[in-house]
Amino acid sequence: MPALQPLYPLLYEDVVRQALAEDLGRAGDLTSDAVVPPELRATVAVRARQPGRVAGLDVAGLAFRLLDPEVEITTAAGDGADVEAGGTLAEVRGRARALLSDERVALNFLGHLSGIATATRGIVRAVAPYPARVVCTRKTTPLLRALEKYAVRAGGGVNHRFGLDDAILIKDNHRALAGGAVAAVERARRAAGHLVKIEIEVDDLEELAAVVELGVDAVLLDNMTPAELARAVAIVAGRAVTEASGGITPETAAAVAASGVDLLSVGWLTHSAPVLDVGLDFGHHLQASSGAM
Amino acid sequence: MPALQPLYPLLYEDVVRQALAEDLGRAGDLTSDAVVPPELRATVAVRARQPGRVAGLDVAGLAFRLLDPEVEITTAAGDGADVEAGGTLAEVRGRARALLSDERVALNFLGHLSGIATATRGIVRAVAPYPARVVCTRKTTPLLRALEKYAVRAGGGVNHRFGLDDAILIKDNHRALAGGAVAAVERARRAAGHLVKIEIEVDDLEELAAVVELGVDAVLLDNMTPAELARAVAIVAGRAVTEASGGITPETAAAVAASGVDLLSVGWLTHSAPVLDVGLDFGHHLQASSGAM
Amino acid sequence: MPALQPLYPLLYEDVVRQALAEDLGRAGDLTSDAVVPPELRATVAVRARQPGRVAGLDVAGLAFRLLDPEVEITTAAGDGADVEAGGTLAEVRGRARALLSDERVALNFLGHLSGIATATRGIVRAVAPYPARVVCTRKTTPLLRALEKYAVRAGGGVNHRFGLDDAILIKDNHRALAGGAVAAVERARRAAGHLVKIEIEVDDLEELAAVVELGVDAVLLDNMTPAELARAVAIVAGRAVTEASGGITPETAAAVAASGVDLLSVGWLTHSAPVLDVGLDFGHHLQASSGAM
Amino acid sequence: MPALQPLYPLLYEDVVRQALAEDLGRAGDLTSDAVVPPELRATVAVRARQPGRVAGLDVAGLAFRLLDPEVEITTAAGDGADVEAGGTLAEVRGRARALLSDERVALNFLGHLSGIATATRGIVRAVAPYPARVVCTRKTTPLLRALEKYAVRAGGGVNHRFGLDDAILIKDNHRALAGGAVAAVERARRAAGHLVKIEIEVDDLEELAAVVELGVDAVLLDNMTPAELARAVAIVAGRAVTEASGGITPETAAAVAASGVDLLSVGWLTHSAPVLDVGLDFGHHLQASSGAM
Amino acid sequence: MPALQPLYPLLYEDVVRQALAEDLGRAGDLTSDAVVPPELRATVAVRARQPGRVAGLDVAGLAFRLLDPEVEITTAAGDGADVEAGGTLAEVRGRARALLSDERVALNFLGHLSGIATATRGIVRAVAPYPARVVCTRKTTPLLRALEKYAVRAGGGVNHRFGLDDAILIKDNHRALAGGAVAAVERARRAAGHLVKIEIEVDDLEELAAVVELGVDAVLLDNMTPAELARAVAIVAGRAVTEASGGITPETAAAVAASGVDLLSVGWLTHSAPVLDVGLDFGHHLQASSGAM
Amino acid sequence: MPALQPLYPLLYEDVVRQALAEDLGRAGDLTSDAVVPPELRATVAVRARQPGRVAGLDVAGLAFRLLDPEVEITTAAGDGADVEAGGTLAEVRGRARALLSDERVALNFLGHLSGIATATRGIVRAVAPYPARVVCTRKTTPLLRALEKYAVRAGGGVNHRFGLDDAILIKDNHRALAGGAVAAVERARRAAGHLVKIEIEVDDLEELAAVVELGVDAVLLDNMTPAELARAVAIVAGRAVTEASGGITPETAAAVAASGVDLLSVGWLTHSAPVLDVGLDFGHHLQASSGAM
Repeated sequence: MPALQPLYPLLYEDVVRQALAEDLGRAGDLTSDAVVPPELRATVAVRARQPGRVAGLDVAGLAFRLLDPEVEITTAAGDGADVEAGGTLAEVRGRARALLSDERVALNFLGHLSGIATATRGIVRAVAPYPARVVCTRKTTPLLRALEKYAVRAGGGVNHRFGLDDAILIKDNHRALAGGAVAAVERARRAAGHLVKIEIEVDDLEELAAVVELGVDAVLLDNMTPAELARAVAIVAGRAVTEASGGITPETAAAVAASGVDLLSVGWLTHSAPVLDVGLDFGHHLQASSGAM
Repeated sequence: MPALQPLYPLLYEDVVRQALAEDLGRAGDLTSDAVVPPELRATVAVRARQPGRVAGLDVAGLAFRLLDPEVEITTAAGDGADVEAGGTLAEVRGRARALLSDERVALNFLGHLSGIATATRGIVRAVAPYPARVVCTRKTTPLLRALEKYAVRAGGGVNHRFGLDDAILIKDNHRALAGGAVAAVERARRAAGHLVKIEIEVDDLEELAAVVELGVDAVLLDNMTPAELARAVAIVAGRAVTEASGGITPETAAAVAASGVDLLSVGWLTHSAPVLDVGLDFGHHLQASSGAM
Repeated sequence: MPALQPLYPLLYEDVVRQALAEDLGRAGDLTSDAVVPPELRATVAVRARQPGRVAGLDVAGLAFRLLDPEVEITTAAGDGADVEAGGTLAEVRGRARALLSDERVALNFLGHLSGIATATRGIVRAVAPYPARVVCTRKTTPLLRALEKYAVRAGGGVNHRFGLDDAILIKDNHRALAGGAVAAVERARRAAGHLVKIEIEVDDLEELAAVVELGVDAVLLDNMTPAELARAVAIVAGRAVTEASGGITPETAAAVAASGVDLLSVGWLTHSAPVLDVGLDFGHHLQASSGAM
Repeated sequence: MPALQPLYPLLYEDVVRQALAEDLGRAGDLTSDAVVPPELRATVAVRARQPGRVAGLDVAGLAFRLLDPEVEITTAAGDGADVEAGGTLAEVRGRARALLSDERVALNFLGHLSGIATATRGIVRAVAPYPARVVCTRKTTPLLRALEKYAVRAGGGVNHRFGLDDAILIKDNHRALAGGAVAAVERARRAAGHLVKIEIEVDDLEELAAVVELGVDAVLLDNMTPAELARAVAIVAGRAVTEASGGITPETAAAVAASGVDLLSVGWLTHSAPVLDVGLDFGHHLQASSGAM
Repeated sequence: MPALQPLYPLLYEDVVRQALAEDLGRAGDLTSDAVVPPELRATVAVRARQPGRVAGLDVAGLAFRLLDPEVEITTAAGDGADVEAGGTLAEVRGRARALLSDERVALNFLGHLSGIATATRGIVRAVAPYPARVVCTRKTTPLLRALEKYAVRAGGGVNHRFGLDDAILIKDNHRALAGGAVAAVERARRAAGHLVKIEIEVDDLEELAAVVELGVDAVLLDNMTPAELARAVAIVAGRAVTEASGGITPETAAAVAASGVDLLSVGWLTHSAPVLDVGLDFGHHLQASSGAM
Repeated sequence: MPALQPLYPLLYEDVVRQALAEDLGRAGDLTSDAVVPPELRATVAVRARQPGRVAGLDVAGLAFRLLDPEVEITTAAGDGADVEAGGTLAEVRGRARALLSDERVALNFLGHLSGIATATRGIVRAVAPYPARVVCTRKTTPLLRALEKYAVRAGGGVNHRFGLDDAILIKDNHRALAGGAVAAVERARRAAGHLVKIEIEVDDLEELAAVVELGVDAVLLDNMTPAELARAVAIVAGRAVTEASGGITPETAAAVAASGVDLLSVGWLTHSAPVLDVGLDFGHHLQASSGAM
């Protein structure tokens, strides 16, 4: 498993700014401005309320820095790490008001992305006895795809296409509109650049043999039973990557993987994984800030 | 229950454009461009694969129009309507390629928002015997708050604050940093504009009596048992809105509502509701387009 | 009066960038580039040419920092302070060219916002003998609302709604289109979230009694004479906040406030207050810069 | 006087969108959504409450169209026209809710820009007996410069520089930092492109003669009395454009113009002109909309 | 050769808007506003001044539509077509001023993109006797990559990677930093998703054999002579795509292609191709516009 | 020749961010992430592969800083300097991955802008014996105009208009639509602000005399032979700036300049100049980074 590579902040800075603007609105944090003395400083612990896999701590950290450039962050369990219930991810020290104003946005990113990482970890563990890898889909939340794909990697999964321009994936409707699988693959091969791979969705096993003969890079085996998948794997015989899809859950993943397929693609990871419950615990070390802003 | 008001497209047009750009990338839809004849037209049915409450059809419709301004959309079950498994939400007619290129983005919006609406409907139904209303929180997906709040309304829920500048909500950390509930409420009252309401989180019942005396508009009763909630309601005695929060699920909602609280706030609606499974069925009426683009 | 809270730069950084871009155009500051030696440094005093209340110094400071990140700013009279004619608000030291290129944008913000703060101060002082507070309206300059509302606070005023989504304010046209005040208030109460207040404009005193019975949070008394206002205040009898509006000026404010209303709302503060005349005095301490950029 | 040329909507469309977004916030128009039946249509008259010169009607019209693309607008007194108190600028027919949601933003643009046009008209009329023209400055409201300059044209004035890159204007600080007027003008001439004019601020009359010899296109005569201006005009003797500036008001403008200067530049037009009071009168012809949105 | 697919306007609309804004500046087209009567209409022919391949006509057309939504465009030789010197690409009818204001931006796009298409056509023709295809690189003009890649397709070329995230291409510096080609390829294979191809740059022929054994999809043969290339092709023996790069020009292309490589990659197409000279001829059919805007 | 003034980063920061985003796409640099150990640091030399004039080093430097804020850059030959083949422009030290991810974007800016500077230098040198200056046109690459104009200055040229709002330039089509040169100039003079110059294109020498009488600032002599130009210069006799245009190349420039014109305008500089070949040489001093990011 390659190590988790951090994302360039350039790729998510704008998203974090927009998220803060979305929460601050026009008037800012009415409550903290009204209630919290401006000179107070605080230390907060970012803690998991349930066990999981962390993703989004760098993103949350940027949110804190954008409201308080002087904030200090000490990471205990960063992106890609496992954390127990009650475990600390990081400590953040800074102006109390800024920490409060930031709290929800930082946790919304952290909980959402850690939820995806944790869900991915669950499936990855379920299929650990088998060589199959777990991949995500394009069923992501609008505007958060790059971050969600990163969370999948943090959970031990690997990424499928990031968008429509990443590779050619001929789904059933393409096939029908193209006049069949053979015509579709032939057109795709003519159009594809030399670094563009081709995958095609296959629904029945007879078609599968023909398609593999055409020389595709991967076949998407949609909504097949484990038994059908095993037969499909035998037909393909290593000539293409085999990907199983369709309603795979933590419960069914092992059975699917046992069929010998190379990949399990799981839309659920990014469209329906629940958040990981993460919270901020405000520490006892509250101090008046020594200097002015 | 007031009727569901449609959102001004001005409020989400940019989000839809960004979502399409996120999926099309730099090179666009390699597959449809390679495989589908440009002159083909198609009719697709937008169908639910499971029962639920619809939200996001207008948003999805805008996605279709942005790639094919000539697309025709006939709505069968619009935002706020209930749909059965297999039920049709709309029919969309247009250029086949554009429909394919749009499919995922349109469904990502529609599935995500309908998932929230369906989850909300579930809780709303669970508490139907009681006067309590169901409200969402600020635990929303970054950049999608306005749409997710709209989906909650489509599900029969009502909205809590849209952001930090909407009203004053004194949480436990504010209270601690302000030096107690009384100091916090006093500061809030001095700072609040005449159209800004004040709510305060209360953890124990003795404090509750003091706080209500101070004249707040609402009290947030966090993580209390139904029995504690009932006692809190009795203490408040109609002098403030009572809001229960903390891990409320479809299973526990009725018991919470039975306590007599006015509001159940449920973060799960927007941070963890699974998508509603919605798909496109490409129809049999494929025709070559008569004219050119 | 609560202390003036500083705005998060995140909320206005983009406005300042756009303002600088608007002035620099495509080719930048032709004059300074042509005429001023690049190595020169200067110290400028930001001075008021007339007495007033300061607002916008932080914003102006950001403008200076955006063209010269090394600029040093020493504040003498910051936002919310009073300044005499000739009084110094701040000293700014940096590259001479950057100071010149920045001058107009910085002063445009500072003069405009200080003008609003000064105007607000004037009305606030006029009504000082009375408990009434001075509020602004949504009659603001497009794209500058948050900054202008902040300037009102700097002047000692308080803010009304920041936008259409802040609270419900039923004006005369809403009332007419809804079929009368009673119908309008009833619909508003059904639709309003639990932290959304309701205000209604009332034109005649008979209607006022009925409306207050309905339980609104505030009544807007538009274009009434002080005598009518006094009668309205008596009718309301503390059951709602009373707000007087309509052509209130520094001259008429005291008479209006004497009626006993809670609020005077004054559109003039943000739509027609003249700028405060503020200028830069370039100091005698011009030095060649020691190092390169 | 050349006819007023309309602005390309491309140049202000984004400003109008942002202004609407600023007012609608995240939740939209709570009041109209709650109170006004969605099917209602209305006709409103845009009327001046005081006499003035119109500017911004096209901009306001775009605001209406952005919330209701089907809106119909009939112009009675468009940009550049004079209007009496009570006079109608336009009639707008469309969905009642959209008209209400748009009202404030449309009027904020229209009142602000018409205020500038009216102020400009006042000065232009005051100097009508003289050949002098009235020009605006760069003392404009941040982000609205192009619109405010257009309003000046609508008022009969002409525009000075739009930004720092439009021409070279050597102010007193440039002169000091360059080591004197002669050095400054020489550097400017070397640096200036062949379509870039040069103007220089002059404070005393002896310097004026030297500067004119150097061949500048215009001289800015700052804070001179009418008598000094007349002497300056005599010294220049038609060899450069003469521009008077410094605290010119409607009261003093004629005396300044009588000095024979070519231009009066008036910062007050754009930084301190009060709005023109313009309002919407909702008509009696309310109808239920025949079709759906 | 697959047919040229049109780009979705969504992918370039923003670029065209920005380009118009860049040219119009704050004040718009001073010349046309001053000189051309507003009511005039004109018909212009878009004509090539030299022979070439057209690309960018749709983009230019959008530029015209953005300043005059009523403009009518008749295409004679659209994107991907060949045109002779003097040949007409399109006729555009609309308001004369808008046509003049648009002219430069429209032609800047059209000339730049047609220049790339024409350059590509030249190399494609030069290698026509051979099976080799012509590919572009990432040496594109910042912000125009998608449009320039499209122009390469219009010229008969095919596209290489659109960005760093499209595929893995191990260049010499990657190889050195990874500790050699073998280590680099092994790491790449572990990290690559199942639809991500791997190409590696190879400088000497001994290394080539080892690399091909590792199972890469393509090899980049940089700066080799035709003889070396031929030997490389023999070594690869069809097991990977072979791509020649390094200073390929129209003069040398045929010799390179004769070596039997699959691809010639030519940075020159997008970084140094001269524009195709295209101009607007204003027609004789000038008419006053019948109605007003 | 005035010294080259650096551009404010504020004017190009957004362009550099967009260019990086264009190359990084959604998934970032797949190759470097996969292949290069994250802890490695490197020193690269930015070297010219051919002789030329440097422009864009500051812009390229910003690209490096945006991906690695800790990067250290030592400039050897900055913007406006001449460099030999093999000459070093700068050394850059930082994280190896960031340097690799940045390489193409930084070089695309640097090569493109240095190509323009080098081309300009060539023409400037060719006309060195004559007083004529070399100016660029508005035939620039969309979205890069300010940077390309800067590159022209770096090459020793001067800038013509930056946009349509910079000055009045009456081209042949304006003239025809205005009903002749005299009418056009008269209208332009009436409309032009006092700092707006007027230039007019002239095609025949008889018209030239009339136009100069009208008092324009400059005449554009399009597509004339050197002999015709010389006659034109004689007719103008110093009463206006004379600008020659039309297909001027390094080969023909001297002959054109010999005619005595003041300016040679050369569209080729910005629309067709080939890049200067600049590359990065990764140094031998690779070290593991001491600390973590």
